[in-house]
Amino acid sequence: MSTAANAAGTGATGATGATGDPVDQPGRSRPSPALLSLNTATVGKQWNLRQMIEACARHEVRGISPWRDKLTELGADEAARLIRHHGLTVTGLCRGGMFPAADAAARAAALEDNRRAVDDAATLGAQCLVLVVGGIVPGTRDLAGARQMVFDGIAELLEYARGAGVPLAIEPLHPMYCADRACVNTIDQALDICDALEPRAAGAAPSGAIGVAVDAYHVWWDPNLPRAVARIGRERLLGYHICDWLVPTRDLLLDRGMMGDGVIDLPALRALVEAQGYTGMHEVEIFSNHWWSQDPDAVMQTIKERHQRCS
Amino acid sequence: MSTAANAAGTGATGATGATGDPVDQPGRSRPSPALLSLNTATVGKQWNLRQMIEACARHEVRGISPWRDKLTELGADEAARLIRHHGLTVTGLCRGGMFPAADAAARAAALEDNRRAVDDAATLGAQCLVLVVGGIVPGTRDLAGARQMVFDGIAELLEYARGAGVPLAIEPLHPMYCADRACVNTIDQALDICDALEPRAAGAAPSGAIGVAVDAYHVWWDPNLPRAVARIGRERLLGYHICDWLVPTRDLLLDRGMMGDGVIDLPALRALVEAQGYTGMHEVEIFSNHWWSQDPDAVMQTIKERHQRCS
Repeated sequence: MSTAANAAGTGATGATGATGDPVDQPGRSRPSPALLSLNTATVGKQWNLRQMIEACARHEVRGISPWRDKLTELGADEAARLIRHHGLTVTGLCRGGMFPAADAAARAAALEDNRRAVDDAATLGAQCLVLVVGGIVPGTRDLAGARQMVFDGIAELLEYARGAGVPLAIEPLHPMYCADRACVNTIDQALDICDALEPRAAGAAPSGAIGVAVDAYHVWWDPNLPRAVARIGRERLLGYHICDWLVPTRDLLLDRGMMGDGVIDLPALRALVEAQGYTGMHEVEIFSNHWWSQDPDAVMQTIKERHQRCS
Repeated sequence: MSTAANAAGTGATGATGATGDPVDQPGRSRPSPALLSLNTATVGKQWNLRQMIEACARHEVRGISPWRDKLTELGADEAARLIRHHGLTVTGLCRGGMFPAADAAARAAALEDNRRAVDDAATLGAQCLVLVVGGIVPGTRDLAGARQMVFDGIAELLEYARGAGVPLAIEPLHPMYCADRACVNTIDQALDICDALEPRAAGAAPSGAIGVAVDAYHVWWDPNLPRAVARIGRERLLGYHICDWLVPTRDLLLDRGMMGDGVIDLPALRALVEAQGYTGMHEVEIFSNHWWSQDPDAVMQTIKERHQRCS
């Protein structure tokens, strides 16, 4: 459904054309091409992980962030070897999380799976493990209970992750995913968890063992966004993901937009992030039936171009 | 698309059956049937306004909240006469708002349309005019600018509404509507507007000329919800709308759920609202391809039953 509609609305004559290139405005600089990173969700329907690693090398994209399904296919050791061979930075591993569950055994199993995700992230030398924390336990309406399970799960995982040297990046997800994917829905809510797990002594900097992954798609609407990003600070800003919000959005899950095709002022968000001293990479993560139906090398070219012109 | 899926997932064996009736739990009381109000969006595909007014009388639903398209069809004077004849309370008029526009002329036209909405609300004796404030101006990415236009529009409308004795109820909409319907997306954001337009002297109660309409669908996910509802207080709590969030939600616009079919803990939200001294009605507003395809008298029966058991 969304494919045909998007095909009409994207590309050089899409929203970008109508609205102008957001970076080509006074006071706005283009990002360094060396900061581009590919989240494997973006072309994961077309390519396996080996193909994506090789494509990054071929297209001179210097970072990659694998999802675990792709990692399992290839094997973490082989993936790490290939990624090292091509000199790529692993900006994150997607994903840990999904902590809420109906009983103690299921919660323990989720935690064990999270420990294996930490191990994989360590094997890859990933800059963080991204946590999509999970939603309400199916068959209940207990949002507060789910949020408590998330807190407890992260608290327990944190020790293990510290031991492995893997920072945990809580990713607040858009409120439309609150029920079934992630009940952490704002940057401030994620930071409240960080503060509770790692209280900040006066004047002391956070360790960076736990922090936040900022994804433009999930946070762009937040009326408190500038203050929330400033509250993250440098040490806890563990990842920066970009894509765009399409108007209309035809599917809650699989209709995310390429940078420049939607309404998010990505250069302004980048400025907020950079103002905190963030010098990390910009990870392009697009779940989209439209982009999954395109030639993946063409998608890589579009990503590179839009990263420059529209982010 | 959503109709067939919902038909399978709703009804007596739907989520309500799986999760239990939320009001039939210790410490939870059923709401008075006299507090039920029908928002005309709920059965607006099947009935015109005259039919809905008569259906409310027939089903002993004591409140109604018309949308303006239905009001225009019937005429505000005739609608007011019929509503008075049947002794219904008008819990709100939907809607004013949509303030952002590309140029001054278009913004002035929007404001003029809002004044006519105030007039209609006065004619009906509506308890408030609900404001769906509008989104980003098409062709731009200027969310901050849209929010400023919303503020300016409400500020200008407020004087006129005060003169007409019509309270303005800002309705924060779910963040997934930020781009194209309403860029006020949390209760706190709405209250910041109220505070700026009507600063509160120490110890003085707000006038109630401007306040908030709380719709469960839009706010249930908010991690700050209890504090935000408490911040509204009695005078500014101008409306309370209910429906449910379905899992999965198959359409951003037209897949809202009947109370009890989703994951919102409506009795808990009602308790928060009642704790502020709210004694107003509970307006059922469901945009749903599924419920629009059903016999409207059966929908009325379901609303009455679910209001009792699940809200």
